[in-house]
Amino acid sequence: MSDPKKSEKVTMKMLAIELGLSTATVSKALRDSYEISAETKARVIAAAGKLNYIPNPFASSLRNSRSHTIAIILPEIADSFFSQAINGIETIVSQYQYHALIYLTHESYQREVQLFTELNSGRVDGVLLSVSCETADTKHIQYLLDTGLPLVFFDRISKGLAAASVRTNDLESAYLATSHLLTQGCKRISLLTIDGFPAMLQSRAKGYKEALSDEKYPLYSNILSCHSKYDADNINLIKQHIEEYHPDGLVITVEHLATSAYMACKELKLKIPAEIKIICFTNQLTASILQPPLSTVQQPAYEMGKQAAELLFQQLTGKQMSVQHRVLPSVLMIRESSTPDING
Amino acid sequence: MSDPKKSEKVTMKMLAIELGLSTATVSKALRDSYEISAETKARVIAAAGKLNYIPNPFASSLRNSRSHTIAIILPEIADSFFSQAINGIETIVSQYQYHALIYLTHESYQREVQLFTELNSGRVDGVLLSVSCETADTKHIQYLLDTGLPLVFFDRISKGLAAASVRTNDLESAYLATSHLLTQGCKRISLLTIDGFPAMLQSRAKGYKEALSDEKYPLYSNILSCHSKYDADNINLIKQHIEEYHPDGLVITVEHLATSAYMACKELKLKIPAEIKIICFTNQLTASILQPPLSTVQQPAYEMGKQAAELLFQQLTGKQMSVQHRVLPSVLMIRESSTPDING
Repeated sequence: MSDPKKSEKVTMKMLAIELGLSTATVSKALRDSYEISAETKARVIAAAGKLNYIPNPFASSLRNSRSHTIAIILPEIADSFFSQAINGIETIVSQYQYHALIYLTHESYQREVQLFTELNSGRVDGVLLSVSCETADTKHIQYLLDTGLPLVFFDRISKGLAAASVRTNDLESAYLATSHLLTQGCKRISLLTIDGFPAMLQSRAKGYKEALSDEKYPLYSNILSCHSKYDADNINLIKQHIEEYHPDGLVITVEHLATSAYMACKELKLKIPAEIKIICFTNQLTASILQPPLSTVQQPAYEMGKQAAELLFQQLTGKQMSVQHRVLPSVLMIRESSTPDING
Repeated sequence: MSDPKKSEKVTMKMLAIELGLSTATVSKALRDSYEISAETKARVIAAAGKLNYIPNPFASSLRNSRSHTIAIILPEIADSFFSQAINGIETIVSQYQYHALIYLTHESYQREVQLFTELNSGRVDGVLLSVSCETADTKHIQYLLDTGLPLVFFDRISKGLAAASVRTNDLESAYLATSHLLTQGCKRISLLTIDGFPAMLQSRAKGYKEALSDEKYPLYSNILSCHSKYDADNINLIKQHIEEYHPDGLVITVEHLATSAYMACKELKLKIPAEIKIICFTNQLTASILQPPLSTVQQPAYEMGKQAAELLFQQLTGKQMSVQHRVLPSVLMIRESSTPDING
């Protein structure tokens, strides 16, 4: 998107050398970051003007360091969680009269890295990010953070990065969901999850394992990793798993696997909850009208999106200096899929 | 978003007067529209340069008339149709290495009009629009079309505007859904819909009425209009309707009303499909695992989004001169909610 003719090939690095500053400092100064003093900002802007440096394709950003646009980067959108999160984000974005670009990684690390290469062009003032399942290497995110561009993680967080974040209490919720199935008499509880590196998946698996290991007597523990995106093949994977291990309870970490698990049980003529009990992390409106109604771990998706956007705008408006981490609790909604007697 | 200092208050109108052209022609010329000759474009660009006219906050757009960004304007996002449509749009947007701004009107005409005032600032090269339920007056859309900015409707179309569109066969699908309930023995079929002006709602109501009037003998016809957004009060509205009119079949035009209708039947202890049969326009993945599995009119949402984006890029790349209208067929997925004997 950048136009080399416009910038006359003056790079940010050349500007930094001219000023005797680091590239990161120059970048932050041009972005009007709270971390840079007014004096330094004035020096950088003066030098940028003198050298005819244009940091991005949108020349107006040179004047006020603002494109009034943020990027929302999501793994997918065919999911009630992300739909509700976008609604939450949108309330804040429109309140600030900003614009939101939406990007889908489709759970691809390559796609995520490719998107990141464009973020620092001045097109956006900040980023809301929920990483792809494949994202183990976070250099692209660290690089962006180094430039001083505000970034807030929501839901799916990469560990070890100094960026603000909003997530739910994944470990505790998975612990409670598993404990709930244990109190319902389940002895063989499997975890259905997807392959991936986001901390949230690991936390949910950890909560499941801790709930089992806190039981006095030895217990069956078994984790099935399915395809990260909705895929008809997941039904077969779940059927094979059930036929091989005969679980009497399923804790499911992602929404689309609930549909696959219900289909698998239907095909195996396995009765929910009599023969197998199910609880799933999902915000689906239809949970209560499923056959049977699905017990869920309901995440505060709208509020997570809203608060992530609020943290981002606190950074953009210079109101927030420290890196904040917020944890919003999920709620267990117990329905018939995990409790035979609940049906009224 | 515009910066009056940058443009030194030279407006497009002043430029048009200077050149003896209409504002629309100047706008189209600056956008590199196929409707304007190369000579006129050269004249306009020369004059714009001479007068230091900057048409938008992104100066690079002056050079190449491209922000490489489109706007997607939707009534809402908590709906499987729009989630899938966005996925379809996104495949084309990323293929062209473009960016997509997402805006939600939340079914508000005022919000839609307010969004439109910013679209012509050069921030976007084109617009994909699904109008709000409240949008009866379409002057804001006509105004934008007059500036030459490419716009393609998808799903929810405003009638009488010369813009490309992609929709499904709403009338025929509603006709088939209603006929299906008639063949299942229903004598009192109600239509559950939402208030609003988009052509799609009217077409679905028309399809319902035509299917009934094509029957030989006089038939019950009854339309219940619910709140356009998901609202717990819709359950009460549906309950009241059922208690008052005793329908034995429901054709439902929008996704979220299916959940409300199921809840209403549950509260009234009314058995689906034995006492009331239901079919709904929806793309929900969970339709087949509902209690009972829901018969649906499944719309080609992904393909509609994809083709709408394709039509837009055909305009952006000058490959399409005429205004195209595409109609992609929906598919009836008959399940247990409308047919007692289908359950295997």
